[in-house]
Amino acid sequence: MELGMIGLGRMGANMARRLARQGHQITAFDPSPEARAQAQAPGIGPVGSLSELIAALPSPRILWLMVPSGQPVDSTLDQILPALAAGDIVIDGGNSNYKDSQRRGARLAELGLHFVDCGTSGGIWGLEEGYSMMIGGAPEVVESLRPIFASLAPSPTSGWGRVGPVGAGHFTKMIHNGIEYGMMEAYAEGFAILHHKREFDLDLHQISEIWREGSVIRSWLLDLTAAALEKDPGMTGLEPWVDDSGEGRWTVAEAIALDVPAPVITMSLIGRLRSRDRDSYSDKLLAAMRQQFGGHAVKKG
Amino acid sequence: MELGMIGLGRMGANMARRLARQGHQITAFDPSPEARAQAQAPGIGPVGSLSELIAALPSPRILWLMVPSGQPVDSTLDQILPALAAGDIVIDGGNSNYKDSQRRGARLAELGLHFVDCGTSGGIWGLEEGYSMMIGGAPEVVESLRPIFASLAPSPTSGWGRVGPVGAGHFTKMIHNGIEYGMMEAYAEGFAILHHKREFDLDLHQISEIWREGSVIRSWLLDLTAAALEKDPGMTGLEPWVDDSGEGRWTVAEAIALDVPAPVITMSLIGRLRSRDRDSYSDKLLAAMRQQFGGHAVKKG
Amino acid sequence: MELGMIGLGRMGANMARRLARQGHQITAFDPSPEARAQAQAPGIGPVGSLSELIAALPSPRILWLMVPSGQPVDSTLDQILPALAAGDIVIDGGNSNYKDSQRRGARLAELGLHFVDCGTSGGIWGLEEGYSMMIGGAPEVVESLRPIFASLAPSPTSGWGRVGPVGAGHFTKMIHNGIEYGMMEAYAEGFAILHHKREFDLDLHQISEIWREGSVIRSWLLDLTAAALEKDPGMTGLEPWVDDSGEGRWTVAEAIALDVPAPVITMSLIGRLRSRDRDSYSDKLLAAMRQQFGGHAVKKG
Amino acid sequence: MELGMIGLGRMGANMARRLARQGHQITAFDPSPEARAQAQAPGIGPVGSLSELIAALPSPRILWLMVPSGQPVDSTLDQILPALAAGDIVIDGGNSNYKDSQRRGARLAELGLHFVDCGTSGGIWGLEEGYSMMIGGAPEVVESLRPIFASLAPSPTSGWGRVGPVGAGHFTKMIHNGIEYGMMEAYAEGFAILHHKREFDLDLHQISEIWREGSVIRSWLLDLTAAALEKDPGMTGLEPWVDDSGEGRWTVAEAIALDVPAPVITMSLIGRLRSRDRDSYSDKLLAAMRQQFGGHAVKKG
Repeated sequence: MELGMIGLGRMGANMARRLARQGHQITAFDPSPEARAQAQAPGIGPVGSLSELIAALPSPRILWLMVPSGQPVDSTLDQILPALAAGDIVIDGGNSNYKDSQRRGARLAELGLHFVDCGTSGGIWGLEEGYSMMIGGAPEVVESLRPIFASLAPSPTSGWGRVGPVGAGHFTKMIHNGIEYGMMEAYAEGFAILHHKREFDLDLHQISEIWREGSVIRSWLLDLTAAALEKDPGMTGLEPWVDDSGEGRWTVAEAIALDVPAPVITMSLIGRLRSRDRDSYSDKLLAAMRQQFGGHAVKKG
Repeated sequence: MELGMIGLGRMGANMARRLARQGHQITAFDPSPEARAQAQAPGIGPVGSLSELIAALPSPRILWLMVPSGQPVDSTLDQILPALAAGDIVIDGGNSNYKDSQRRGARLAELGLHFVDCGTSGGIWGLEEGYSMMIGGAPEVVESLRPIFASLAPSPTSGWGRVGPVGAGHFTKMIHNGIEYGMMEAYAEGFAILHHKREFDLDLHQISEIWREGSVIRSWLLDLTAAALEKDPGMTGLEPWVDDSGEGRWTVAEAIALDVPAPVITMSLIGRLRSRDRDSYSDKLLAAMRQQFGGHAVKKG
Repeated sequence: MELGMIGLGRMGANMARRLARQGHQITAFDPSPEARAQAQAPGIGPVGSLSELIAALPSPRILWLMVPSGQPVDSTLDQILPALAAGDIVIDGGNSNYKDSQRRGARLAELGLHFVDCGTSGGIWGLEEGYSMMIGGAPEVVESLRPIFASLAPSPTSGWGRVGPVGAGHFTKMIHNGIEYGMMEAYAEGFAILHHKREFDLDLHQISEIWREGSVIRSWLLDLTAAALEKDPGMTGLEPWVDDSGEGRWTVAEAIALDVPAPVITMSLIGRLRSRDRDSYSDKLLAAMRQQFGGHAVKKG
Repeated sequence: MELGMIGLGRMGANMARRLARQGHQITAFDPSPEARAQAQAPGIGPVGSLSELIAALPSPRILWLMVPSGQPVDSTLDQILPALAAGDIVIDGGNSNYKDSQRRGARLAELGLHFVDCGTSGGIWGLEEGYSMMIGGAPEVVESLRPIFASLAPSPTSGWGRVGPVGAGHFTKMIHNGIEYGMMEAYAEGFAILHHKREFDLDLHQISEIWREGSVIRSWLLDLTAAALEKDPGMTGLEPWVDDSGEGRWTVAEAIALDVPAPVITMSLIGRLRSRDRDSYSDKLLAAMRQQFGGHAVKKG
């Protein structure tokens, strides 16, 4: 099929490449000339503007947005919507908040356009292994895009699916990331305990490799963990500083809004906040309180 | 090799079977005649007593214990140790506490016997897929058992290894199970949020299948989850009652003893306690406190 | 001073009473005739409509809203604002979200009216003991209301204060309630452990009384807890079902928005959600997963 | 009454002083000559050895141990038990683990001696305000000590009591401290959120003072917090490093052993561990995992 890819960052460029390799014809745009140059490949034709991209696509147009979530998505829509025609399809493959996707879906529907939200998992490995895609949108619209999803997915019939109406795709991807937070933290805590058990002098990389085969906790995240442990088992080159990218806090907010107790996902998020709270006011106040009531030992700053 | 398998429950019987299939000769004992009868297979010779088992094995004897952790291990040792000879090897393949294994290792060493603790993961699937094994013991003793571990493992050179001295095997397995608790809870919370998002009417089994291919959270536990969701997506036939088998609480105790913060593994354990606390005293007291200070709504029992 | 009290529920009626006892003249309104009849007292003149209340007050008018948070506050404002004159003061003494208070403050400011948000703590005990009040608003406006706050507070010079601009009062009250959640849960957990330590056959009411004098954990919440334990130490008459009234979840959301780790306040909220999740989907899924990988014991529903 | 006080640290010296002020006659010992010299006061007679102390007391002797928990208690018992006579009473007023107290109680009982475990709360403020005491021991033994407890307590008839057999006193004190952990953390988190809400520029000391009067969260710990905030509202002079003294982890272990979910007390303990884990291995591993799967931003050490 012919598809316009908007946003040629790591994810967008790789997805364009995977689609082109499987015979799709991609018109691609990114505001950065370097990104456009790097994206050049058989089957991928970078263009210098959004209007060129829109002009180059046959009707009904298929546009895949792979831009940072939040304002960039809305601003891209502001630019392209006036030039689109009824029946055109806009897919947001990024990490948008599902409520934004619902809002955008309504906006496009008023214009006679179709909106599809596609939560995309797989990171930089998706180019070779395929992407897992959770898709929200009208059934017939999603069905019309089948050749595209089939090419991006690990196999034509697995690793992707329409999960519900507009918004359901990004909602499902949000939960996916919440689970990811919890799993990552579980592994990190486990390896930290192993690391601190000095008396056994354990080889954490070896253990991660043992677990990769046959164990109950084998997983792709464990494969990545093993790769990280192989490079630097003592984690000497890194700061204990863990970023978060939004989906974790959205998941926590959603759990609370739905009255669903999610202590582990929540504590995973809070652990990341804690990693960046280097001069914790609450811990200093606790030290001060202890000093007040018992003259307990306090470390002076 | 020739090996005596003591304990023919689900795990022990399957391990004997996998060993026999790969050409090892297994003498097997279980106090239950039914278990002995069911274990009968080419390469497996059940015997009616521990003394027969010991008598049947060539020197140095290799005995693999696959009995419930705790007292049964000690009581089995009480029975077999007097009949063993210097150089014989006893492997505990069960879920023993690593401190018990250290104690037992010292006990056997005083008698000139070798003790090996082998944390074994894989459950009922190990028979076909192989077991992941984390092994503690003297290097040359573990090396002498290589053919056995190579046959039990998913492949001769992966999924198993000596991780340290006696105790290190069960220690590593304990942490493995702690991580498992955290991962299971992360999935469970994520699916619970999906389940409660009524407006999207999500198909949880479908989503689990999508995630199995290409997603960041694909894992063997997710494969099992998908199987469970396929059978009964509404979980209608189950009580919300989650048992725990010891390793989780040992992991939490170890983390605290080592001053390692492990909030997610800990909350996973507490969640299981909570699942069985059906008439929570603390929640009733909270309701009573709210009643005291504000005349808040309270559900009468 | 003369003040119009809008809302004669438990809190509003008691506050009117406390003000009237100290010589203020209260015009009072509630949509319920019963509430109006019950509020009748020396110094309190109930009226049958908001317009009568507004007409009865001298300029600049002082109106105290004590209505449920959320829509009722906005709808009351919709009714009264058209009848107010520049310089009039509206105080919201309820549990509004501070962002709503900021929005309402801006709305009133455009009309030349003053808005004051007063977070009020004390529950049904405030009538006798006085209320703790955290106040947001312009300094001179709050200062002009000093006689009112001085009368409502435990003493004229303590237990109340202007903490910042409009919104700061309800923000501070929100955090107060978040802390309250954590403290309540800490007591509840402690008493639950005592309750389950059957071998000591502890008298929980006695222990609460001991702690009330001289201990590090003495507090007003402990006084209430002791009263509840005296009435029903076994908590036999209550369901383990704990409601939450909004401020807890707002506190959790705010902590996350500010990147402040607040695990205890958060877990207190999640504990309340859990108390109402009687047929936990996540726990059922955990049981199903355990069944999948190990044939573990599962309670059939 | 006449009483031998062993251990003249801050707690022991203050308790001796409070007893002497109320007419009791105290023979006092501490291995440090300075501590003995400082303890000298009307009604307090320091002696230079344990044997002198024992010789100075009338029969039946009453000995109050106020030494660090753990080995020091056992070693003191080793020294004094041989010199005691049937009917003598030893009170452990320190923070011993209740299981140690049960063991010690049995040891003394075999010798015909009485053991009483007295959990003591109040810190350095107890001298003036009295101590809260939770007492375990035989009813008639505890009753015989009534004049002593009555003098140490805030009032003769409140703030103290026999809560059960030997061990029950220290058990109850342990739970007291677990609750204390949770309350402290709740306050600390609340003030941390206030601290980070820069837009309101809140005065945390002022807010703590407002809350001290009339609010639902007023408490003695809040009084201490207010004192700490008055001295240094920015907590500029302290490290975010919070010690723990044993009872918190014992409480967590006990809760788990009894299958009682205690998430808030547990997270309070874990928060303290976290405050001292300055170079968190788990957070570094999380950063490494994120780097692996997405090329996410990582802070280099």
